Amino acid sequence: MDSIYFHPKIKLGILGGGQLGRMMIPAILQLDIDAFFLDPDPNAPCTILGEKCILGDYKDFDTVYKFGKNLDVITIEIEQVNVDALKELRKKDVKIFPQPEVIELIQSKIAQKQFYADNNIPTAPYKVINSFEELKECLTISPCTYVYKSAFAGYDGKGVWKINTLEDIESVDIYPGILEEKIDFYAEISVIVCRRNSEDRVAYETIQMVADQDLNLLKYLISPIELPFDNIENKAKKLAIDISEKLDIVGLLAVEMFVTQQGEILINEVAPRPHNSGHHTIEHTITSQFDNLIRAIVNLPLGNVDTQLSASTVNLLGKHVNVINHNPNFYEFLDSNSFLHLYGKDPISPNRKVGHITFISAKDDVANTSAKTKAEQITDFFNLEFDKYEFK
Amino acid sequence: MDSIYFHPKIKLGILGGGQLGRMMIPAILQLDIDAFFLDPDPNAPCTILGEKCILGDYKDFDTVYKFGKNLDVITIEIEQVNVDALKELRKKDVKIFPQPEVIELIQSKIAQKQFYADNNIPTAPYKVINSFEELKECLTISPCTYVYKSAFAGYDGKGVWKINTLEDIESVDIYPGILEEKIDFYAEISVIVCRRNSEDRVAYETIQMVADQDLNLLKYLISPIELPFDNIENKAKKLAIDISEKLDIVGLLAVEMFVTQQGEILINEVAPRPHNSGHHTIEHTITSQFDNLIRAIVNLPLGNVDTQLSASTVNLLGKHVNVINHNPNFYEFLDSNSFLHLYGKDPISPNRKVGHITFISAKDDVANTSAKTKAEQITDFFNLEFDKYEFK
Repeated sequence: MDSIYFHPKIKLGILGGGQLGRMMIPAILQLDIDAFFLDPDPNAPCTILGEKCILGDYKDFDTVYKFGKNLDVITIEIEQVNVDALKELRKKDVKIFPQPEVIELIQSKIAQKQFYADNNIPTAPYKVINSFEELKECLTISPCTYVYKSAFAGYDGKGVWKINTLEDIESVDIYPGILEEKIDFYAEISVIVCRRNSEDRVAYETIQMVADQDLNLLKYLISPIELPFDNIENKAKKLAIDISEKLDIVGLLAVEMFVTQQGEILINEVAPRPHNSGHHTIEHTITSQFDNLIRAIVNLPLGNVDTQLSASTVNLLGKHVNVINHNPNFYEFLDSNSFLHLYGKDPISPNRKVGHITFISAKDDVANTSAKTKAEQITDFFNLEFDKYEFK
Repeated sequence: MDSIYFHPKIKLGILGGGQLGRMMIPAILQLDIDAFFLDPDPNAPCTILGEKCILGDYKDFDTVYKFGKNLDVITIEIEQVNVDALKELRKKDVKIFPQPEVIELIQSKIAQKQFYADNNIPTAPYKVINSFEELKECLTISPCTYVYKSAFAGYDGKGVWKINTLEDIESVDIYPGILEEKIDFYAEISVIVCRRNSEDRVAYETIQMVADQDLNLLKYLISPIELPFDNIENKAKKLAIDISEKLDIVGLLAVEMFVTQQGEILINEVAPRPHNSGHHTIEHTITSQFDNLIRAIVNLPLGNVDTQLSASTVNLLGKHVNVINHNPNFYEFLDSNSFLHLYGKDPISPNRKVGHITFISAKDDVANTSAKTKAEQITDFFNLEFDKYEFK
């Protein structure tokens, strides 16, 4: 185990300056870390830090190398970064967490699937697809409902196609990728693990995701999970920790899982960074996913993640803000157990994530005041309002 | 009651850019508030925000007026600000919380004492002193142990003199002030109240302060309090809320109190801003004092302040950091229930507050792992180390 190398003013670089980076800022300020963000968008949420958010492309070798060469530690808030530059920087004694090999593995859905197979980690059966012809062949030989995921793109549901018929494959325009039979799942769950080393690692409580099927985006999440299968919470945590060990990751690993109709767990995908399914940890536990990421990468002991509370989180998209701007009745949903988060996104487009609300309640609260009920009520409110106001 | 006037990008000004302002930044970012700090120190902790921390004197009328005239809301993180400018800004529909009259009252220890007398709020007996001759007269007629506090200075124990003999009064060089008989107190406690309006106000759990007598600075604080008097926790909360009502304050009010040997509560002094005795609220409750201040002044419902935890906080001074830099055994005190905060102060002088550590434990934990025990252990560690290393 490394000795403590944390010191005040330690120089940290974050590749990406979006909301995930922005939510790291409290932990960065708290420890007096000298942090720099790199993002190509001059209006990225982290530009609130002025010149400490540097304009540049985290996919470009030279830009990443130049950004990183005088830093002590680098982490990411998006996977699509230049891994070759990170490997070079590591040779110059810059610490890179998560490690470049982990980022590289996760950048490729094909490599990710191979890793699961090699390590006996349960996941949906898949086939690597290199061309339109291969995709067509699969559908012809064995017609059923598939999901095709391009190997290298993919963020917020982009790069994913639902394939029901031969017609659907016409719109697929990125190869290679993987083709999975669509899992007829009972529920989607997620566990966030933070790992500093094999002796110091924590798993946040398993959460359950309720998705908006049309947009392939999270609608709301709840914790604890509500599933009729024994011990699923702990099985999911154990599996997530197991994957983090096999990856030997330092930092966060968000593990998204399907629970089948039979109560089996299959890994859907993993992300080696803060994750939407962990935003509630800001209020739900003493140490949030962002706090623990920073602790892990500067080698300070990870913080307590116990909780006695229920939580729900509703994502806010541009269209939600449009409703809020027209109908201030939204604010009636805010009370002492509601926590509004806005990311400072500009411009705001209808389906862009621009914030979230977390609701908290006691675990034994099943009344109208429960976190889950509030998430449902506010979702209903928005659904009724969306069509009333033109988006501009 | 005002309607909700909060909106994303609402313009907030904070007079002062020290650690108290810096600890507001998470709440400011969370709500996408467009915030500006004003501080005369080019190295103030809030300069991390670059050009959003404006260099200027918050005691100067023109500077404060110019800073504030295009803002929606202004608050403070230090009391010694230009109140006349705030009154003028209010006429231009800038919201000022806490209200200028409250700041003005609290700027003067004489006015503060008069307010307690007018409102039957229990406090130590006092006498207004306008000159050396008056001070001398008091000591001659009724020799005893006094505390003299200048009316208008006073921060971190400055502007306060202990008076035991006629000789001691020679060093007093600020008039007017108040002379109090030194209270032979059993304990010092504090309650932080946050108030949005008379229907929405919260009191954080009462904390107990253990002071370093030599420096007149907090050594550590603990919550819950450990006192052999019935119901003192609730009496203190009730009194603090009562004062906040009588002041009609919007924002935070830190109420420092003495508990006498007989278990009576006497008000020591109040501060209408975030306070050192509430730093543990960052981890101790879901909504910290900083979060609730921001909610109060932008008129969003105050957040939950319930807790099932014990907390202790140890202030870190420059001399502590000197120890940390020489003896990394300090880091052995950090574990999953320890929360290190560093304020980014520059320069670091031996007795300047530069950070704090909060320890958290279960309320029923009385073992070595309790928050209080850890505070004692780390204080002992520092006391043994202070003289070993030269401060530079």
